[in-house]
Amino acid sequence: MSLHVVVIGAVATGPKAACRFKRLMPEGRVTLIDKGKRISYGGCGIPYYVSGEINRVEELQSTPYGTLRDAAFFRAAKGVDVLTDTEVTAIDRSKKRLSLLDHTSGKASELEYDRLVLATGSSPLIPPLPGRELEGITAASTLEEAECIKNSVARGGVNRAVVIGGGFIGLEMAVAFADMWGIPTTVVELREQILSGFLSRDFARMAAKDLVDNGVNLLTGEKVLRFEGEQGKVTRVVTDKRIIPAELVVLATGARPNTSLAAAAGLELTERGLIVVDEYLRTSDLDIYAGGDCVALRNQITGKPFWLPLGSQANRQGRIIGSNLAGGKERFSGAVGSWGIKLFKESASGAGLTLETALAAGYDALSVQVQQIDKAHFYPEHAMMALEAVIDKPSRRLLGVQGVGAGGDALVGRINAVVPLLANHATVSDLSTLEVVYSPPFASAMDIVNALGNVAENTLEGRSRTLSPEEFQALWNNRASGQVCILDARARNDALPYNEAFPGEWLNIPQDELARRIDELPRDKPLVLVCNTGLRAYEAQRVLDSLGRGDSRSVAGGLSAVGRMGFGILPGKK
Amino acid sequence: MSLHVVVIGAVATGPKAACRFKRLMPEGRVTLIDKGKRISYGGCGIPYYVSGEINRVEELQSTPYGTLRDAAFFRAAKGVDVLTDTEVTAIDRSKKRLSLLDHTSGKASELEYDRLVLATGSSPLIPPLPGRELEGITAASTLEEAECIKNSVARGGVNRAVVIGGGFIGLEMAVAFADMWGIPTTVVELREQILSGFLSRDFARMAAKDLVDNGVNLLTGEKVLRFEGEQGKVTRVVTDKRIIPAELVVLATGARPNTSLAAAAGLELTERGLIVVDEYLRTSDLDIYAGGDCVALRNQITGKPFWLPLGSQANRQGRIIGSNLAGGKERFSGAVGSWGIKLFKESASGAGLTLETALAAGYDALSVQVQQIDKAHFYPEHAMMALEAVIDKPSRRLLGVQGVGAGGDALVGRINAVVPLLANHATVSDLSTLEVVYSPPFASAMDIVNALGNVAENTLEGRSRTLSPEEFQALWNNRASGQVCILDARARNDALPYNEAFPGEWLNIPQDELARRIDELPRDKPLVLVCNTGLRAYEAQRVLDSLGRGDSRSVAGGLSAVGRMGFGILPGKK
Repeated sequence: MSLHVVVIGAVATGPKAACRFKRLMPEGRVTLIDKGKRISYGGCGIPYYVSGEINRVEELQSTPYGTLRDAAFFRAAKGVDVLTDTEVTAIDRSKKRLSLLDHTSGKASELEYDRLVLATGSSPLIPPLPGRELEGITAASTLEEAECIKNSVARGGVNRAVVIGGGFIGLEMAVAFADMWGIPTTVVELREQILSGFLSRDFARMAAKDLVDNGVNLLTGEKVLRFEGEQGKVTRVVTDKRIIPAELVVLATGARPNTSLAAAAGLELTERGLIVVDEYLRTSDLDIYAGGDCVALRNQITGKPFWLPLGSQANRQGRIIGSNLAGGKERFSGAVGSWGIKLFKESASGAGLTLETALAAGYDALSVQVQQIDKAHFYPEHAMMALEAVIDKPSRRLLGVQGVGAGGDALVGRINAVVPLLANHATVSDLSTLEVVYSPPFASAMDIVNALGNVAENTLEGRSRTLSPEEFQALWNNRASGQVCILDARARNDALPYNEAFPGEWLNIPQDELARRIDELPRDKPLVLVCNTGLRAYEAQRVLDSLGRGDSRSVAGGLSAVGRMGFGILPGKK
Repeated sequence: MSLHVVVIGAVATGPKAACRFKRLMPEGRVTLIDKGKRISYGGCGIPYYVSGEINRVEELQSTPYGTLRDAAFFRAAKGVDVLTDTEVTAIDRSKKRLSLLDHTSGKASELEYDRLVLATGSSPLIPPLPGRELEGITAASTLEEAECIKNSVARGGVNRAVVIGGGFIGLEMAVAFADMWGIPTTVVELREQILSGFLSRDFARMAAKDLVDNGVNLLTGEKVLRFEGEQGKVTRVVTDKRIIPAELVVLATGARPNTSLAAAAGLELTERGLIVVDEYLRTSDLDIYAGGDCVALRNQITGKPFWLPLGSQANRQGRIIGSNLAGGKERFSGAVGSWGIKLFKESASGAGLTLETALAAGYDALSVQVQQIDKAHFYPEHAMMALEAVIDKPSRRLLGVQGVGAGGDALVGRINAVVPLLANHATVSDLSTLEVVYSPPFASAMDIVNALGNVAENTLEGRSRTLSPEEFQALWNNRASGQVCILDARARNDALPYNEAFPGEWLNIPQDELARRIDELPRDKPLVLVCNTGLRAYEAQRVLDSLGRGDSRSVAGGLSAVGRMGFGILPGKK
């Protein structure tokens, strides 16, 4: 008898595991079961389908060469049997037998397995708000929901859209509505910032500015109370601060792993309810593998289990499960948690911990940031990029990196370069010398990644002492108190508009004149150094330190960071 | 007495070391000496200045905030003394004293040092060809040469340009002439391929196609014999195959390190004449540091010394030298040799060894290649990318990675992701699970980098057996011999144009029909499997193997690779 592998869940991990197993062991038998009608689709593509960038929903369910990945495809091209619209209602581990329910016929049946794969994925977390059942309120998780959203938008029936949740899916949906359809769109986020847990507050503000600049009405720190409607259709979202009219509401308030089947079968779960797997992706029952959105991965930074529900993870794990089902011994060593999102003009990307999550995890951490052009500064086509590094102070280990920039591929390329360093517990000096590809159309000779390492080292050594753009904003707004002296270290022409706008409040001594003009500085106030990106302010700080004025701090990322956060200092600028 | 540091060479390593030292030790004294008039410029920007993308040559010598980095700048802003137009003629190590010659005044003098930095860089290697002295023949290394080239182009006096050398500088100059000025341009390369030592033959052909498609006359395997002219000006380049008219000839035939001063001072050099440095970038004289184009670096893959004359390396090393001059203990652990070049539509990038250089270094190596879209295949804006990995067979270690693609930043981002793996002696399974950032606008869920690791593993296991596109080209051209059967594993519609163009020579059995139609295959000939990118051919190979037909090979990278190499199979296509 050939080995019978049953795979529960046929979106990403499941099909990958099934097909890999069949390629390695053609004599084996595989049954792929899914409770949905559609299988093997790229749910991550839903926002691009809704936006209209992808025409037909079938494109999300097709191979790169255009063949629809349906049950017939898996049977003919992959030798995999598929049961769709079929739910596994129970796992009898002792008898290695599954209870099935065919939703089309309503019939129950049983199926025996030799090896089982749980690829049950995750489901949107729907908040139990009053009015939730109104027409026009939907998640954006399945292809059916995607079609429903796109049809209502394309019919022209949506004049105002509200997205609940400022995470990845929420923001991608908001961009799809506002950018491609021109629909006035509001995003309501409970927390004080978007992309919470993935970006620092400063960097989230840079990303938020791109949304706001492109017409999205962004409401952070705001709680949705209920939905209201007329004739069964949603018309209003009621928050703790206002009423927002809407014909379409997308719920993007997170997800939860689908692990009830595993729990009922007595498999080991983490405290957060994720399936525990070993490095071979086996569950506590060695005949049962699991992967994708339903499992806990080892966080390579903290060493602890964490959740990383991403299509890329699902695919990589699916392949390993397939190999191991066929007798292989392939290991999955975990992940650092890399991510990316394209907004309007800006993109954001990162990996590892933010300062906030690092502190919460118990690290004695700090973060540094750099603003720099993403190519050689003399190369004409370039964009400003901002990178932030999170560092464990005692060990100088890198704990995370995040960035925002208009050059999306360039940004992601920098994050990709740092991912292996995070996994290997590398230090800031490894970042300083990281050998990113250099050529003027792609990078600076002293690239922003290296500069980030340099700034981290200078900060750890106490040579660079900064305040964050947000701290500077607070100081500036309170400047009437006269507690600090703002010192602009740039050349006269750069500083002139500020001198004219704020006479007596904006002191300019160019960095190269500072040594001989040190007596012009007030002696009774600490100094706050500003320049474009922080480079000259750092040099000025070194000069001041050497002359005994150790009481300066520079604005991290300079006026570039401040401006990109949407805090305009000059009147009439933002 | 404060420490006196003298730095010889003021282009990249030198200024970086000098300024870093001064920032760390403001009480120290630094003298920066250069035999040229211009200092601290980005020579890598010369092609973009010649092309007109950069207007003024001063932009290559300016800070990101637009200040000219001349001697006055270094004195005022950095506290560094500069002697330009000054040559160091000898180093007396026992007396720690330099002999100087001021080229402006013609005066000789002496200068004592406590610590010395050799940042003497490299010079173009000018082949001793007859006619070399004719006007209109120049290297493209200094800003003066760059100005001279641009002026002659801008005056309209150049109707035909010839570039000698198909390496980085040669190709960048050819693109500058042809793309931005529309000048008919010929590149003459002695070797059989461009970017020799950096790309495989297959991949060099992909890059070459971009040059040829955009009008560059590319002559490989051709030797320049002499230059001929009229009235002292070049008019013709004579090769072993033809005479090429030209009003401008750029020599881009490589470079050599400037180490005569170090050699005369008795410092240790490698066999190739590079200055030997330790991990702190000290020479055999511990009071003398060296970095940049004049030193040997440790190749992190082979463990052996190698040369990597790049502006990025120079800057990173300069900073470390500056730190160590000030009492630091920063290490430079070497490099894997990463590089990138933007051509017309395509870019090329890589790191580590090619198959050719790996075999030459004694590795039992193989290479695999993948053609894949650089974003999610359903995401509308995407480009085809080709990646090649070089693997040490016994250990499965990654030895190198190279790529060609129209998405330059996306390609470089993939190479960046692999660089740390090369440095860490990672294996193909590390590539399979490498956590590159995923989101449809940036990558595939099973990204090309991961696919490259998968293909490598399948190849090492003997499951994937391929022939290179170039081998396929030879087989195809010899198809009249009837020695092999070409089997197209794609769907009928994809294969149809080929069936019609080559009746009887192009067999099509879609992969999903192969199992039941196995009897249609000729039994007496080995099978050559083709599809678009190699994916379905691999699946077909697995089916054939399982049915006892183990005599197939698939075309690596499929018809996509074949087409991108400029070998069009269909009539009227290339």
